[in-house]
Amino acid sequence: MDSRNIRLAVIPGDGIGVEVVTEGLKVLEAVGTKVETTTYDLGAKRYHETGETLPDTVLEELRGYDAILLGAVGDPSVPPGVLERDLLLKLRFQLDHYVNLRPVKLFPGVETPLGKARPEDIDMIVVREGTEGPYAGAGGVMRRGTPQEIATQESLNTAYGVERVVRYAFDKAQGRPRRKLTLVHKTNVLTYAGDLWARTFDRVGLEYPDVQTDYCHVDAASMFFVSQPERFDVIVTDNLFGDILTDIGAAIAGGIGLAASGNVNPDRTAPSMFEPVHGSAPDIAGQGKADPTATILSVAMLLDHLGLAAEAARVEQAVADDLVERPAGRVGRTTREIGDDITARVAG
Amino acid sequence: MDSRNIRLAVIPGDGIGVEVVTEGLKVLEAVGTKVETTTYDLGAKRYHETGETLPDTVLEELRGYDAILLGAVGDPSVPPGVLERDLLLKLRFQLDHYVNLRPVKLFPGVETPLGKARPEDIDMIVVREGTEGPYAGAGGVMRRGTPQEIATQESLNTAYGVERVVRYAFDKAQGRPRRKLTLVHKTNVLTYAGDLWARTFDRVGLEYPDVQTDYCHVDAASMFFVSQPERFDVIVTDNLFGDILTDIGAAIAGGIGLAASGNVNPDRTAPSMFEPVHGSAPDIAGQGKADPTATILSVAMLLDHLGLAAEAARVEQAVADDLVERPAGRVGRTTREIGDDITARVAG
Ligand SMILES: CC(C)[C@H](C(=O)O)[C@@H](O)C(=O)O
Ligand SMILES: CC(C)[C@H](C(=O)O)[C@@H](O)C(=O)O
Repeated sequence: MDSRNIRLAVIPGDGIGVEVVTEGLKVLEAVGTKVETTTYDLGAKRYHETGETLPDTVLEELRGYDAILLGAVGDPSVPPGVLERDLLLKLRFQLDHYVNLRPVKLFPGVETPLGKARPEDIDMIVVREGTEGPYAGAGGVMRRGTPQEIATQESLNTAYGVERVVRYAFDKAQGRPRRKLTLVHKTNVLTYAGDLWARTFDRVGLEYPDVQTDYCHVDAASMFFVSQPERFDVIVTDNLFGDILTDIGAAIAGGIGLAASGNVNPDRTAPSMFEPVHGSAPDIAGQGKADPTATILSVAMLLDHLGLAAEAARVEQAVADDLVERPAGRVGRTTREIGDDITARVAG
Repeated sequence: MDSRNIRLAVIPGDGIGVEVVTEGLKVLEAVGTKVETTTYDLGAKRYHETGETLPDTVLEELRGYDAILLGAVGDPSVPPGVLERDLLLKLRFQLDHYVNLRPVKLFPGVETPLGKARPEDIDMIVVREGTEGPYAGAGGVMRRGTPQEIATQESLNTAYGVERVVRYAFDKAQGRPRRKLTLVHKTNVLTYAGDLWARTFDRVGLEYPDVQTDYCHVDAASMFFVSQPERFDVIVTDNLFGDILTDIGAAIAGGIGLAASGNVNPDRTAPSMFEPVHGSAPDIAGQGKADPTATILSVAMLLDHLGLAAEAARVEQAVADDLVERPAGRVGRTTREIGDDITARVAG
């Protein structure tokens, strides 16, 4: 047990975000590490009450924590995109979360739509760039609403931004048994951005002669996620392609209820933020139907990021054990029951 | 049997393109329609011999045909992207193939990686925009090769371009039993382009009250292709998202060897072009290992486009019958044998 005191900012957010975060925190406490949490009411409710999404004062406060745990944001009552951009993406950009780390791993016992896939076939990590690319928000519109309207959307890529995430991915690959890193892009069509990515990948790769490298167009990679997931070990890709690939990854690894993620600032100039890949799912909110496993696995990533590797492994093992027993009849559990079961394993 | 004489330009291209096109033409002749073909040697060989990809004179000649059948282009000996952009994409853009029509259909008897999917679950058509978006080639690079490099890539979208493909998709959906059309985009992040797409979709939809509409972010759609493909009937989406989705579609519908496509100019101001979704697969070229089925299904789409619906149906039925018998031991056939078998069914 570590004696360090984790100062954690918690943003439960909207919908099922609130429910799954409760379970994530329960597990975190069971680990035995001292955690001091402060909850922030960012999300739809605050937006409606005050018009605020992420006030500057809150952003500054958040910088003071060791890490952030986020549930999910978004509600049909808020204009589409507002909370996503002005809260979630703003956090990622402002806290310089240039690595969006998303493991795609099929745990034993978990059902996958891929009839023949075994756990050893699906075990990869997607390193998604988190602060630039098509997510920069650049673009414009002219003659809006007329037959002459044009709308542009720009992907902004910098050597600085690409190199740091590529380097992170090489390090990650080097630390895994297979030591394989695949760059995913669409260099044959997105020539300017693709060229920067490919050149950077090749150049940084020279420093990692022990890592086997590979390139795959995003369309082919999307296909291979389904037909040959065993091709992949670590993947590095841009913000948008990573968004798409990790949702396919969630699908093949047993569903969005299990997909964890970390928005990581590897330089630690600001706290990293951990969140399940799923959204706020307003349709099932408040019914105890959400699976908190993705959040609990995100908590494991958080522990790992804070240097508590043993604790992280304990949480992941508890989840793995829980998942193995699910097919044996422990279905239909509520959010809280799943959280309690995993907590008991972690504590026991 | 139709007495019309089809004037067809054939671009076998590279690698397995040559092999599969041979079988496609065999089937086309067996249909009984008169076809006059002219073959164009565009592709890697011509590029190496003359430096040409698609000379203007050839492009002008191609305009005179009723349709184009293309195998596949691309070879490792050519700098990546050159043939794709200066030949394939140039054809699509110059001949105004604003609809890239890609059926995703699981034929009975075909094995899918999705363990539980039945043919009735996977039966959709992706209407991919073909002439703008991120494929426009817009963008730039500054301070190339330095740590200060920036590279941009721009998606160009016009009301003109979006409306015509959306309208086509609504027409298509109206003609199918389920009458459901899903717009796929990423409106919460790509706000300028997404807003144009969403507004156009809603506005045109008012003219089609009998078509049920739906919206899905591209990440969620990619996931649903795997976890709930039955959600989809007709999909309309931009050039890049369509590229990605249709490769996932190929994977779930039994592989890239079966995926057909049409680059369609619905206004008939230039010939439409039909091609398998797969590439030139240099690794298996010349070995008789390629499956010509995707090309043969593309020939069916070509016939349909030229108003020969009965003939198109006959080819599709022959493929369906051939596919049903495959699991029963007719595996390991060569490209030519598969072509012969399907040709015999069409003729018989
Ligand atoms: C909510 C949305 C802006 C977000 C993204 O596109 O990054 C989500 O899809 C994700 O993957 O975390
Ligand atoms: C070869 C490439 C340029 C092309 C595309 O991206 O459109 C291919 O992937 C396709 O889907 O036809």
